[in-house]
Amino acid sequence: MRSLFGLWSKSCFPAVPWGLISCREMAKSKFEYVRDFEVQDTCLRNCWVLVRVDGRNFHRFAEQHHFTKPNDVRSLQLMNRCAQNVMDELDDICLAYGQSDEYSFVFHKKSNWYKRRASKFMTHVVSQFASSYVFYWKEYFPDVPILCPPGFDGRVVLYPSEQNLKDYLSWRQADCHINNLYNTVFWSLVQKGGLTPAQAQDRLKGTLAAEKNEILFSEFNINYNNEPLLYRKGSVLIWQKVNEVSKKRIKLPNEVDEKEVEVSRWRKETVILHCDVIGDQFWEEHSSILSDDS
Amino acid sequence: MRSLFGLWSKSCFPAVPWGLISCREMAKSKFEYVRDFEVQDTCLRNCWVLVRVDGRNFHRFAEQHHFTKPNDVRSLQLMNRCAQNVMDELDDICLAYGQSDEYSFVFHKKSNWYKRRASKFMTHVVSQFASSYVFYWKEYFPDVPILCPPGFDGRVVLYPSEQNLKDYLSWRQADCHINNLYNTVFWSLVQKGGLTPAQAQDRLKGTLAAEKNEILFSEFNINYNNEPLLYRKGSVLIWQKVNEVSKKRIKLPNEVDEKEVEVSRWRKETVILHCDVIGDQFWEEHSSILSDDS
Amino acid sequence: MRSLFGLWSKSCFPAVPWGLISCREMAKSKFEYVRDFEVQDTCLRNCWVLVRVDGRNFHRFAEQHHFTKPNDVRSLQLMNRCAQNVMDELDDICLAYGQSDEYSFVFHKKSNWYKRRASKFMTHVVSQFASSYVFYWKEYFPDVPILCPPGFDGRVVLYPSEQNLKDYLSWRQADCHINNLYNTVFWSLVQKGGLTPAQAQDRLKGTLAAEKNEILFSEFNINYNNEPLLYRKGSVLIWQKVNEVSKKRIKLPNEVDEKEVEVSRWRKETVILHCDVIGDQFWEEHSSILSDDS
Amino acid sequence: MRSLFGLWSKSCFPAVPWGLISCREMAKSKFEYVRDFEVQDTCLRNCWVLVRVDGRNFHRFAEQHHFTKPNDVRSLQLMNRCAQNVMDELDDICLAYGQSDEYSFVFHKKSNWYKRRASKFMTHVVSQFASSYVFYWKEYFPDVPILCPPGFDGRVVLYPSEQNLKDYLSWRQADCHINNLYNTVFWSLVQKGGLTPAQAQDRLKGTLAAEKNEILFSEFNINYNNEPLLYRKGSVLIWQKVNEVSKKRIKLPNEVDEKEVEVSRWRKETVILHCDVIGDQFWEEHSSILSDDS
Repeated sequence: MRSLFGLWSKSCFPAVPWGLISCREMAKSKFEYVRDFEVQDTCLRNCWVLVRVDGRNFHRFAEQHHFTKPNDVRSLQLMNRCAQNVMDELDDICLAYGQSDEYSFVFHKKSNWYKRRASKFMTHVVSQFASSYVFYWKEYFPDVPILCPPGFDGRVVLYPSEQNLKDYLSWRQADCHINNLYNTVFWSLVQKGGLTPAQAQDRLKGTLAAEKNEILFSEFNINYNNEPLLYRKGSVLIWQKVNEVSKKRIKLPNEVDEKEVEVSRWRKETVILHCDVIGDQFWEEHSSILSDDS
Repeated sequence: MRSLFGLWSKSCFPAVPWGLISCREMAKSKFEYVRDFEVQDTCLRNCWVLVRVDGRNFHRFAEQHHFTKPNDVRSLQLMNRCAQNVMDELDDICLAYGQSDEYSFVFHKKSNWYKRRASKFMTHVVSQFASSYVFYWKEYFPDVPILCPPGFDGRVVLYPSEQNLKDYLSWRQADCHINNLYNTVFWSLVQKGGLTPAQAQDRLKGTLAAEKNEILFSEFNINYNNEPLLYRKGSVLIWQKVNEVSKKRIKLPNEVDEKEVEVSRWRKETVILHCDVIGDQFWEEHSSILSDDS
Repeated sequence: MRSLFGLWSKSCFPAVPWGLISCREMAKSKFEYVRDFEVQDTCLRNCWVLVRVDGRNFHRFAEQHHFTKPNDVRSLQLMNRCAQNVMDELDDICLAYGQSDEYSFVFHKKSNWYKRRASKFMTHVVSQFASSYVFYWKEYFPDVPILCPPGFDGRVVLYPSEQNLKDYLSWRQADCHINNLYNTVFWSLVQKGGLTPAQAQDRLKGTLAAEKNEILFSEFNINYNNEPLLYRKGSVLIWQKVNEVSKKRIKLPNEVDEKEVEVSRWRKETVILHCDVIGDQFWEEHSSILSDDS
Repeated sequence: MRSLFGLWSKSCFPAVPWGLISCREMAKSKFEYVRDFEVQDTCLRNCWVLVRVDGRNFHRFAEQHHFTKPNDVRSLQLMNRCAQNVMDELDDICLAYGQSDEYSFVFHKKSNWYKRRASKFMTHVVSQFASSYVFYWKEYFPDVPILCPPGFDGRVVLYPSEQNLKDYLSWRQADCHINNLYNTVFWSLVQKGGLTPAQAQDRLKGTLAAEKNEILFSEFNINYNNEPLLYRKGSVLIWQKVNEVSKKRIKLPNEVDEKEVEVSRWRKETVILHCDVIGDQFWEEHSSILSDDS
């Protein structure tokens, strides 16, 4: 074996002599002080950690991909699929609620995932949601090619009490209701009533819920309460235990032949509901969601 | 038109009477107090805002998709493509640096994008990066189907001075160098030298850069300095002005016929470099990157 | 009146011409951008806000002013007086707990004092405490001149639940107990037993509470449980309603002469207790302390 | 020695048996989890740390103690004395600037005092300032008893660049100038001109600096530029090196008798200036203030 230095030094690598390379190793530690500029962004303990994801410029994205108005069922189901993937991939999410182009995820107040760092909660949720959106797109829009990678905005909010958390979810569901009722009437006026968007907007200015229902019923024969719950209530994702039965061939001791047996196993999986979360009923029926051992 | 209340009240909608619906509107404002739990996370002004994105569990993701070792050129180019999309879509990014499964984005210290809210910087970068990764996947892995939506982790770090920022980038590039040299020797020992991973690890324990170079050269006839710059230096994305010339037919006043003219226009576009950013040369040649009017 | 400019210009004020002065006014607004560097440090809503004050270098301060060991009753009473002043001067403090050279103040979770800014809570408490310490000094140390202005350290901690808050107070009271038992034995060994501090420390190394009690009883005839509650439990400050009766001379309508009447008025004032706050009894007896309408 | 348990157990201390006491030690560790609710509030490195102290309700405090208007020289000098004490007691303060009832302290950007925790910077400054205010009161107000302990408000602001820091100080000095000019004219109109405060306010509404100077000169024969610099510029505290010469008797080797010698020693002490800090001159003359080795 020829000597490294005999062979290479100076003549071969004047620009990057070996010396420099171990300098780099020293350099690395010299530069490492920059890590001290990172701040601790620990979420206060014993608080519910809420991460909300919103589509960035989704108005434009919806136009580009010809989403149907006022609701595009494919788009809502795709959002649900993404939320399921987020719940499956990340830890400690006990509930998610979605409507329109937004989704809220609730991490349990006892969670210590990534030491409760806010940036971890936010970026893991939002990146998983975003990559899922493109990944699952073709399952929901088989005939529509996706034209560009969509962006999402995320934020973390802490809620110290169960009541604060429930009020947050109620706020989002009340928002869903108000927007959906408005949009249903608005697009009926435009699509079926022949009004221009500006005319529809004028017509609806200052109307109460009851008046909007009246317009829907008397002019378009739509009973708003028969509209799909997916549109009116949004989607709630929770965990449920399912019993999975599978067949397996095993050989028991003291027996000669293998035997087929059924093996039953409890597994947690997400389930999607379209129900009211403002009243007490939901929380009474699903009391384990927020309990300490969920 | 029949009376709304005559028709519907009680009999039709016992469960959700009209009254409730306007209650919902009131409800929304009643719940809206939950917005006050959001915190202001404004980034200190006059500081460089650095957002770093890292692949989550990318070791496993690389295995699942059979990335070549020690470097998969397709994967690195896909990362670069995603970073370009991030720079194109978001505002005020003046430089990005990537290596391995990480990418760092520098927002200009004068940026006031989204009022400098840290959560906006983080989540917009990381979600755009994540959706781009799936979106552009097939351009770089035409024969490999993507099996699952990948996740990414993001963080924000503030650097008050230009020197701190340059030191951050130097730190990442020194890290690239050290890891790549190690990985190049390690996988040579395994793939060509027939060592097991454990044996290769043992062999390299405690070796200096010069010794690793010696092993590569004497045993595998690899001159490390001839390895691709993409692997050794990582990728630097910056903006450059390009002159775009297009042809156009116009009719000038006082002339009878249309005439074809060339129209030249300056446009900014990203360019990818694989060069040293630790020394001064890069910053001298590209002094406008960090300048106030970039 | 002579013309200002005829009189003064140039000849009188070459160094600071009038022009400059209005420049200053412009200057002020030019510099005002620096306000944007202040950050919002709002305390999360619906959380108990705890501010703890600790004496800075109080070991040395105690030496300089010849505080008696292990407890100086004057010093503890002065601390209590300062805490009372803090509760009287600032808003929304519902309880305070003090021991040794530290004091903890609990702002009600519903407080919106100074928009819940952490820096306001901290600095108002700590400065009021510090100025009170010097102000009331001579009432408790009439014969000891104060030699230097003492410093204090302050911090804010948020507790989302009542249990967390009670556990905080239990933690401080358990700390008071453990330290006071130790100090009582230690100083008995030194002051009465003739041991050097080092010998006393050795003697106590690894002893349990029961052993310390045994030493106190068998060697110094001290029944620890007869020691003053002020030392063993620390001090709890809460609000109580007191009925104040004052005499007033009034003239009623339809009467000729003034008459003396008694006027009774409810007033809130602080009261100092030396009781256990670890068990439930205290909280049951004073359930209004943490209630929403306290 | 009688057995502890034979003597005391149950019969003597049913309420607080020994068992409980060691329970307390266990209890302490059980409660200690509450420490995890404290947040890290590290100040970003390489930034100037500015702490500003403001008197709380000082308008009322000034009335109660009959401060002279528009400036009370005793009060300003007391503020300066407190600031000196703060600089002497705490580490790493390189400059302080005071005017009216406020004082700003600059910690060097390289300071690592208390790991740069914002709450430490704030509370140590504000408590030292507050206790000094009462402590030194009688030196400046020998005939005026202090009636109540004053409160102060504090805040921390970070400035990444030297220019930002200088602009902050310029902002405060421009504020000093504008307020002092206004107050000087206002109180002349009231005290010498016989106007009511409301009339004086009306008279000054909308006036420029030049007009205020004109009023002072033509109506009250006051040349504003001859007013004390303490009022017009505020106070700047910086460190200066002083040579201290002291006499000492020493016996040199090879000599029989002791001899008196002069020992000279460099010492840092604070000095108070009343000068302009808006222009460059101050910073040029005192370039070491912000230098890395100050």
